[in-house]
Amino acid sequence: MTPLEPVTVFVVPGIGEVTSDTDLGELLIATVVARLQPGDIVVITSKIVSKAEGRSVRADDREDAITEETVRVVATRRHPHGTTRIVENRLGIVAAAAGVDTSNVADGTVLLLPQDPDRTALTLARLLHVETGFDVGVVISDTLGRAWREGQTDVAIGAAGLTVVQDYRGMPDMQGRMMQATVVAVADEIAAAADLVMGKTSGYPVAIVRGLSHLVVPASDDTLQQARSLVRSADKDMFRLGTAEAFEAGRRAAAAHDSGAP
Amino acid sequence: MTPLEPVTVFVVPGIGEVTSDTDLGELLIATVVARLQPGDIVVITSKIVSKAEGRSVRADDREDAITEETVRVVATRRHPHGTTRIVENRLGIVAAAAGVDTSNVADGTVLLLPQDPDRTALTLARLLHVETGFDVGVVISDTLGRAWREGQTDVAIGAAGLTVVQDYRGMPDMQGRMMQATVVAVADEIAAAADLVMGKTSGYPVAIVRGLSHLVVPASDDTLQQARSLVRSADKDMFRLGTAEAFEAGRRAAAAHDSGAP
Repeated sequence: MTPLEPVTVFVVPGIGEVTSDTDLGELLIATVVARLQPGDIVVITSKIVSKAEGRSVRADDREDAITEETVRVVATRRHPHGTTRIVENRLGIVAAAAGVDTSNVADGTVLLLPQDPDRTALTLARLLHVETGFDVGVVISDTLGRAWREGQTDVAIGAAGLTVVQDYRGMPDMQGRMMQATVVAVADEIAAAADLVMGKTSGYPVAIVRGLSHLVVPASDDTLQQARSLVRSADKDMFRLGTAEAFEAGRRAAAAHDSGAP
Repeated sequence: MTPLEPVTVFVVPGIGEVTSDTDLGELLIATVVARLQPGDIVVITSKIVSKAEGRSVRADDREDAITEETVRVVATRRHPHGTTRIVENRLGIVAAAAGVDTSNVADGTVLLLPQDPDRTALTLARLLHVETGFDVGVVISDTLGRAWREGQTDVAIGAAGLTVVQDYRGMPDMQGRMMQATVVAVADEIAAAADLVMGKTSGYPVAIVRGLSHLVVPASDDTLQQARSLVRSADKDMFRLGTAEAFEAGRRAAAAHDSGAP
């Protein structure tokens, strides 16, 4: 990488409405391929991946759908309109309402997250390689809330053909000492950069990020880094439960102990 | 904003080593001003802001410095090399080691976060307005870890002259319905995009983000959005304590109750 090379982020026009009849690969061939250069990274919102996969369910079944997507409840909070459930879903992602999406979907429906976004990203990255003859990265993005900070940012929930995590541990810093703790979630930063051009209402669900070719790798299983590797497993997570839930678990544990229960 | 306008992110060369003798404003005038266009956003790493503010302390005093920066301990974890403290610091930011920085600093020293990055961003945004005659946004970025996800990303810890949080609540989505929960932390996404070009070892602590002029506002107190507004206050945070700490608090509360203590 030439450090002075700019990174350029731009949306792809002409995607149109995506439905369960849409073949995403054909759509990318028609709209994206002619614009690509070697080392580009294509960012696709999870929303259109879900739509193409027919992951729409009736809005009346929303709460049941969240329950089905849930592997583990992390925290819940009651509010005037109901209860928000922050859960770990099938993909390991911790998200409010299991990532179930209610905006920009057909009336009376809600949209579940894609079935296997890492697999879809790999399929699309390979297809783009076949069509273009060069390596292209693919990121599937979703909008998530965070602990400690207001607002949401886009992150990578699927990835193929690019470095997902850039590990500087053991690399010398500018003073020649080893860096201790810097592991950069570059795929999340790429998703965030793409969101700056895609917006939330503008109808551009695909963007191209150009100028990060040093992060792009062949999309083969051998070199595979998946967005799944960005998910911290609960056993390593210091925030695997909400504060109220963990407090209550501690209170119950003490009560159980006092009563002689195991 | 023309939706098809690309966003371009590029580093500014020639910054050189920053010390407590550096006047950041003079440095920006010498290196950045000639490159700016109306609506640009300048992203500056907190590291050089701290260095210019003389926020360096002896490495031997690191643990004391973390304690002094700490407003509230969120979680701690012991590991073979010591104890990691995740704390809320003076700025409201939840960070490991209170954001104290040990890479790319002078030997035998560590670097505290800037004193008041929102204030510094405002001073610099006003200076850039005076020098250029047009509005320019300023973001001061830092690298933070997250709950639930591996790796770190850059976020905004100081901001002036730009929209920090873009609130889509109450705006119609593509189907004309009101969007319920989308509040985008655009300043964090801008910091993340800038990190993609600045890297961690390449010695480019200033970047320009071009193409987001719809987010740039005059840097006056009246229209001020601060990075501080991205910090969720502990009383609203469902993850204000680590799971182990909250569990222990619950256990103790039960024990205190059982013993008749308040």
